[in-house]
Amino acid sequence: MTRNPRRGFASDNNAGTHPAILNALCRVNAGHTVAYGDDQYTETALAKFKQHFGDTVAVFFVFNGTAANVLSIKAGARSHQAVICAESAHINQDECGAPENYTGCKLLGVPSPDGRLTPQGIETHLHSFGFEHHVQPQIVSITQATELGTVYHPGEIEAICACAHDHGLLVHMDGARLANAAVFLNTGLKAVTGRLGVDVLSFGGVKNGMMFGEAVVFFNPDLAREFKYIRKQAMQLNSKMRFIAAQFDALLSNDLWRRNAAHANAMAQRLAERVGNLPGVTITQPVEANGVFARLPQRIIAPLQAHTSFYVWDKADNIVRWMTSFDTTAEDIDTFARQVETTLKQLNK
Amino acid sequence: MTRNPRRGFASDNNAGTHPAILNALCRVNAGHTVAYGDDQYTETALAKFKQHFGDTVAVFFVFNGTAANVLSIKAGARSHQAVICAESAHINQDECGAPENYTGCKLLGVPSPDGRLTPQGIETHLHSFGFEHHVQPQIVSITQATELGTVYHPGEIEAICACAHDHGLLVHMDGARLANAAVFLNTGLKAVTGRLGVDVLSFGGVKNGMMFGEAVVFFNPDLAREFKYIRKQAMQLNSKMRFIAAQFDALLSNDLWRRNAAHANAMAQRLAERVGNLPGVTITQPVEANGVFARLPQRIIAPLQAHTSFYVWDKADNIVRWMTSFDTTAEDIDTFARQVETTLKQLNK
Amino acid sequence: MTRNPRRGFASDNNAGTHPAILNALCRVNAGHTVAYGDDQYTETALAKFKQHFGDTVAVFFVFNGTAANVLSIKAGARSHQAVICAESAHINQDECGAPENYTGCKLLGVPSPDGRLTPQGIETHLHSFGFEHHVQPQIVSITQATELGTVYHPGEIEAICACAHDHGLLVHMDGARLANAAVFLNTGLKAVTGRLGVDVLSFGGVKNGMMFGEAVVFFNPDLAREFKYIRKQAMQLNSKMRFIAAQFDALLSNDLWRRNAAHANAMAQRLAERVGNLPGVTITQPVEANGVFARLPQRIIAPLQAHTSFYVWDKADNIVRWMTSFDTTAEDIDTFARQVETTLKQLNK
Amino acid sequence: MTRNPRRGFASDNNAGTHPAILNALCRVNAGHTVAYGDDQYTETALAKFKQHFGDTVAVFFVFNGTAANVLSIKAGARSHQAVICAESAHINQDECGAPENYTGCKLLGVPSPDGRLTPQGIETHLHSFGFEHHVQPQIVSITQATELGTVYHPGEIEAICACAHDHGLLVHMDGARLANAAVFLNTGLKAVTGRLGVDVLSFGGVKNGMMFGEAVVFFNPDLAREFKYIRKQAMQLNSKMRFIAAQFDALLSNDLWRRNAAHANAMAQRLAERVGNLPGVTITQPVEANGVFARLPQRIIAPLQAHTSFYVWDKADNIVRWMTSFDTTAEDIDTFARQVETTLKQLNK
Repeated sequence: MTRNPRRGFASDNNAGTHPAILNALCRVNAGHTVAYGDDQYTETALAKFKQHFGDTVAVFFVFNGTAANVLSIKAGARSHQAVICAESAHINQDECGAPENYTGCKLLGVPSPDGRLTPQGIETHLHSFGFEHHVQPQIVSITQATELGTVYHPGEIEAICACAHDHGLLVHMDGARLANAAVFLNTGLKAVTGRLGVDVLSFGGVKNGMMFGEAVVFFNPDLAREFKYIRKQAMQLNSKMRFIAAQFDALLSNDLWRRNAAHANAMAQRLAERVGNLPGVTITQPVEANGVFARLPQRIIAPLQAHTSFYVWDKADNIVRWMTSFDTTAEDIDTFARQVETTLKQLNK
Repeated sequence: MTRNPRRGFASDNNAGTHPAILNALCRVNAGHTVAYGDDQYTETALAKFKQHFGDTVAVFFVFNGTAANVLSIKAGARSHQAVICAESAHINQDECGAPENYTGCKLLGVPSPDGRLTPQGIETHLHSFGFEHHVQPQIVSITQATELGTVYHPGEIEAICACAHDHGLLVHMDGARLANAAVFLNTGLKAVTGRLGVDVLSFGGVKNGMMFGEAVVFFNPDLAREFKYIRKQAMQLNSKMRFIAAQFDALLSNDLWRRNAAHANAMAQRLAERVGNLPGVTITQPVEANGVFARLPQRIIAPLQAHTSFYVWDKADNIVRWMTSFDTTAEDIDTFARQVETTLKQLNK
Repeated sequence: MTRNPRRGFASDNNAGTHPAILNALCRVNAGHTVAYGDDQYTETALAKFKQHFGDTVAVFFVFNGTAANVLSIKAGARSHQAVICAESAHINQDECGAPENYTGCKLLGVPSPDGRLTPQGIETHLHSFGFEHHVQPQIVSITQATELGTVYHPGEIEAICACAHDHGLLVHMDGARLANAAVFLNTGLKAVTGRLGVDVLSFGGVKNGMMFGEAVVFFNPDLAREFKYIRKQAMQLNSKMRFIAAQFDALLSNDLWRRNAAHANAMAQRLAERVGNLPGVTITQPVEANGVFARLPQRIIAPLQAHTSFYVWDKADNIVRWMTSFDTTAEDIDTFARQVETTLKQLNK
Repeated sequence: MTRNPRRGFASDNNAGTHPAILNALCRVNAGHTVAYGDDQYTETALAKFKQHFGDTVAVFFVFNGTAANVLSIKAGARSHQAVICAESAHINQDECGAPENYTGCKLLGVPSPDGRLTPQGIETHLHSFGFEHHVQPQIVSITQATELGTVYHPGEIEAICACAHDHGLLVHMDGARLANAAVFLNTGLKAVTGRLGVDVLSFGGVKNGMMFGEAVVFFNPDLAREFKYIRKQAMQLNSKMRFIAAQFDALLSNDLWRRNAAHANAMAQRLAERVGNLPGVTITQPVEANGVFARLPQRIIAPLQAHTSFYVWDKADNIVRWMTSFDTTAEDIDTFARQVETTLKQLNK
């Protein structure tokens, strides 16, 4: 059982469960509770969401991030409507077409080199309203932090929300790594979401130390009216719901969400500092959350991967992605940075 | 946190996680593993499935039973095809239309008073082959044990499979409570599934002590060729897969699946024995798995529910359902049986 | 080209196009008009609909009856909602699962020996509101005239609409043969639809003399707000729309709809009178529209079909269906009635 | 009825029905025929398709081009698979998301300034095979003639088919204007489709003189095995099928398809010649089929539209689209060319 004794930088999904969350799972295990969410653990967890996101939110737990994103769209759009997102967005690239298949909606991609949408980019798709031959823009979906480790500043989100709302569109945020963004911005969770105009949020747990489970958070409760049916029909209603609830309760208690994300972010910073100035290494994106994107000499990539797992992000351009997580240690970083340095030297001989 | 200190009979989903399974979750928590199933814990768990179900099975983990059923259908049928099932089947009554919505397939219900299909019942829908105005029968779906706590005998399943295969149909088994059926029949898991001709199985974990996770087991590996895409697109690919794998590994080790189910079944038998002969109580279905269905005097139902949670199954006919689970104790049964007896007496005064 | 020189009783879809409608097609063929419905012919036809169905209707042309029915449901229900209909309804039996596949909605069938729903039958499905595991009833769909040639009386429809509306459901009418029903009831088109509470109507053209094209008529214009997108996305937007418009214009002018239907109905009456009293022939449904259902001695069915095309409706019970249409002649009826008589005699020898 | 006495250049869909086709509709109107395609007119028409496209084709009539395209995809791909097409393709821009909604498949657009795909462009999407997070490329869809009035040369199609087939993909051709392309290339219909490797074709009728109806032509009959169910379930099975069949029979007889297309193409050439050299007018695409794309001085566009209907194609760039059709006359062209010339002069004063 120790074939993978080390931690790598392949994905924050490769980490396990934070001990405090595992503890919470054990704690709620006694006795029977009503299935499907009508239990006191879920009630407690939902109360925690209200503390963090505001009293009026409607919150629903689902199994994973794909579902949180897809069902957010299902709740807000009919099949002839469209979702505007960055071309690099997870919903556009990495969900095997789940959004289109489940909602029928077309995704309209905007080229976004650093993963961030802008009102100008959105506006390229804000046309053909009322023209039945063309899908009708209905949702703008932004990712915070982005797939490229960058973070929207509050003013940027505000501008996007204003642009969307002015045209009658809703704003969805894929917050699989929202905690990392909030830490970078040094704000609370509501301050970078509902307060800026976001209508519905996929709030990530798994990439920040949970075992399974994500939350759909509606700031506009009107959108949530039929969501319980949507969730059930979409195969996303968990029977032993207390086990998602307990995890979120733990994550939103004692600042665990913040501590986990802050640690992961710090580790990414440490990595960027350690390797960013090495000859031949170029950090290609601002390091704002828990990911480091770097261009490397092509020849050192495979040798590095032999020791430490990580993915090539852009093969043509020799750009790799290094993700840190709540359990990355300073020693992991320093060991890996030395590997990079050594490998570079060996290959430069 | 002790508002529900006791165990009730509302649902086997109301139980928590078996301690051995919780232990397994803790054990696999160390270090990083590849996400999405390409890890050694998943490999180990899949090997356990092959031990129990045969070397040729293709097995995929999903989050819940709804998904296991719906994706089994998706894998085996196109949208113009149809699924023949008992009118009382879970897929027909309790999935909020998920099968129709996700697969496009029509469900053709067969009245089945005890939850069991028969070849004769199936044959009422075996017509209109080649007639494009009518959906084309493609899958027979049976539930083992049934929604009504009854169990198909191997010969019955064999006859259904022969009937289905003779007409070019596949057989799906909803095995949310397969373990309970196998225990009742005193057989292994393959002996009541693949060996009898079942093509694809939803193998339940949650109702038998797991926290979350079910498995889709293809006995015909040809059906599984594209299933990894189907699972991902259906929002059912778990990222930290080791945490489903470890649970199934534990469930399929040391006969845990059998011990849990045997215990639940025994508790159902005990309950039936304790209350079955009380005046005014009629057990309405053979008690073969972990459920007891009983007709009660209407006036005692609410008073009983005030103490112990359970559901009314058929309001018009005053039939209630009592489900037992791996953690039901003999004391739970005896206490409840006394409540029934006392309540009956009080109301007969 | 004369392999089918005669007319049969297989289907009102086997008839051709009424000459007045063919003339209309030729008349509108000159010059260019805007495609997709923004033309003066469509404007004229829509005005005709308002004359017949009321000033507030919103009307959309589609290609066929399957689409009119399915898109009516799509407009009024989301995928977790359900449609209550007669088990024998065309949407439930003869659309190859199109309603479920395209809308995701489950159909809840009610056994209806004569094809007519009743409030009592509907109420068997009016439960589980708010219960997320069960589809939510949203639409009642009735067929006027029914698949069995029977006609709802206005009071019956009113009662169904009241029942549906009381529970927050909409009423859809499949009016593929609405004209035949209105003739039988000796009323106008609105008097048996919107005035009684019907919310959305599939108004049939093809079975009453048109070449192609049906109309979706919304009495509640709120339901129609997004319908133009629904129609386009559903592949039902005709480009050269004038050619559907012109047909409906003709059908709704000079009482053509009524004359065609009245003739077809009269022919069905004549047939029922001619054969109904023959020994061995039993008319099994009231003959109210343009269909005659009759039980025949099994041995005479094939010999009759050798001369004249018609379908066996219920093989087990030797019930056949004879449909008349706008172009059926009294001679057709009398010739066929003599055949029935002769064949009966020969076989009784 | 003469509000639109003239012909414009807005769309080949704005034309009416060719007289020979209208005649054919009248000719087949006598008597009863079996509905839904099992009639002798359909048999005759299908034989004509075999003459033109080869003995092994399987051909199905549908109502319109949207359906022909969407159902071709449905027949060839499952929902987790993807379609590679030009960004400007009709299926990608002008179907209100019908392909994604009905098939679940994602469309992967390739920037194609002149509307033509190339193997190089296709290859940008030929990756991630076997990677379940990404849609799996399955179909290449090309449009012949393109949305921009250009025509693929046979060698280009051959190269695309080779590229697609080498990677296990199918090739679909949107042939709404295939006749125009074949005329430009001076070939027959099979020579630019099946013979080059195209697997399935949407063969257009409406833009070339028909009233309604398009055909899906499978060169690979294996793909067609379940198509009759797909068509029915997709609401595209015409009941009075003889009226589509008769049109195609006429179109494919006596070279009508070729004569109509040749005339439309010649009119486009004439228009390009008449206006292409006027000062301020730039023809922006090769004029190969029946469309002329031209950049005009912005100020003359509205005045020209006041007289003659046509659409602005690219508002930002002042590019207009002029479509010709089978009924465009030389006088139409010359009158309009004079208008352009006059309007240019007036505005240059």
